[in-house]
Amino acid sequence: MKAKEMMDKDFIYVSSEDTVENVSIKMEESRRFTSPVVSPDMKLIGWITSLDVTRGLREGKKTASDIMHPKEEIIYIYENDPSRLAVIETSNHKLISMPVLNKDEIVTGVIRSFDIIDTLSSLYDVKVYKLYEAMQQELKGVTWEELMEASAIISRRTTGKRVKAEDYERNIRNATFGEAIWATGGLEKFFVGLIAVGELVIARKVGKARK
Amino acid sequence: MKAKEMMDKDFIYVSSEDTVENVSIKMEESRRFTSPVVSPDMKLIGWITSLDVTRGLREGKKTASDIMHPKEEIIYIYENDPSRLAVIETSNHKLISMPVLNKDEIVTGVIRSFDIIDTLSSLYDVKVYKLYEAMQQELKGVTWEELMEASAIISRRTTGKRVKAEDYERNIRNATFGEAIWATGGLEKFFVGLIAVGELVIARKVGKARK
Repeated sequence: MKAKEMMDKDFIYVSSEDTVENVSIKMEESRRFTSPVVSPDMKLIGWITSLDVTRGLREGKKTASDIMHPKEEIIYIYENDPSRLAVIETSNHKLISMPVLNKDEIVTGVIRSFDIIDTLSSLYDVKVYKLYEAMQQELKGVTWEELMEASAIISRRTTGKRVKAEDYERNIRNATFGEAIWATGGLEKFFVGLIAVGELVIARKVGKARK
Repeated sequence: MKAKEMMDKDFIYVSSEDTVENVSIKMEESRRFTSPVVSPDMKLIGWITSLDVTRGLREGKKTASDIMHPKEEIIYIYENDPSRLAVIETSNHKLISMPVLNKDEIVTGVIRSFDIIDTLSSLYDVKVYKLYEAMQQELKGVTWEELMEASAIISRRTTGKRVKAEDYERNIRNATFGEAIWATGGLEKFFVGLIAVGELVIARKVGKARK
């Protein structure tokens, strides 16, 4: 995934001559906490956060150029950089958002922290039964009932709690991948559980074929 | 995971009588874009963002209570709520952060968007070979070499590209779960690949046992 697939294209921007008052109004009306400062041809020249605006208003600064952080001091990313880089930079520098540039240094978007959260959390929202469906499709000749029965057995082995196949199925119908990871105690443990289920159904399949 | 495990305990707060100027300075110095407004006994009574401060400064408002959003209008979460709820609310309402309360309505923390990103992205950073190690441990009697060989075969089947077991091993040594998901085209596909590898090593193990 590239940065440009994650960025908000509907961003605000200001020029270095805009008054601090106008920058303030633009940010408030659009509910944006940051804004790139651009040249007339949309090249990045600086970055303003709402905290630069509060300070500017208090200290009676006149224009955007008086309160902005110059390009050398800010963190930005290029359209074709991996979106992972945006995640790392946001996390390391505790950023709210960062500008995205094309190869001509023109601002084409802004990646905001909730754009990142939306992308990251979509993985957590995958329903667990989707994984089981994919598993069943891969393990040809295994029925859904056999898969649920094996899962109930593995679940009992791991947790010590007796669970019926029907209950297990109901659980995974509602559960998301994120919930499953937290419930099992981590990604590795979750995967090991699935592998154990796979192993059991395969062993049973082989056993049946031998009879 | 609960909200309290994700929240920042080192948050700033203001009282409703604090001047807008002082709120501004407090936010700038701590680099916080939001602040809860609390009563003397630390109960939540309102919420201020830096955009409320810019507007307040421009319009000559006097105190925090003149610019804050009252409790009824803001989104907050309780310590023992699932942290997932914070992710959903942040994403739905495009929030920068939200206050966390205990059962007595006292503010005990703030969940910021990068706290969420840190938590969510830690899953993506799990090294793929950790999953293979867990798999090998679960599939007793399968060697690491057999696992890598099976992976190289499945990889060739899926991608059509010939890959040696050593190359495969080198890839998964460096790759993270996040990269693997993006490379294979989604969680289900990644997972199906692992199941296919598991199936193959089990089939080979059963084959060897028969000889």
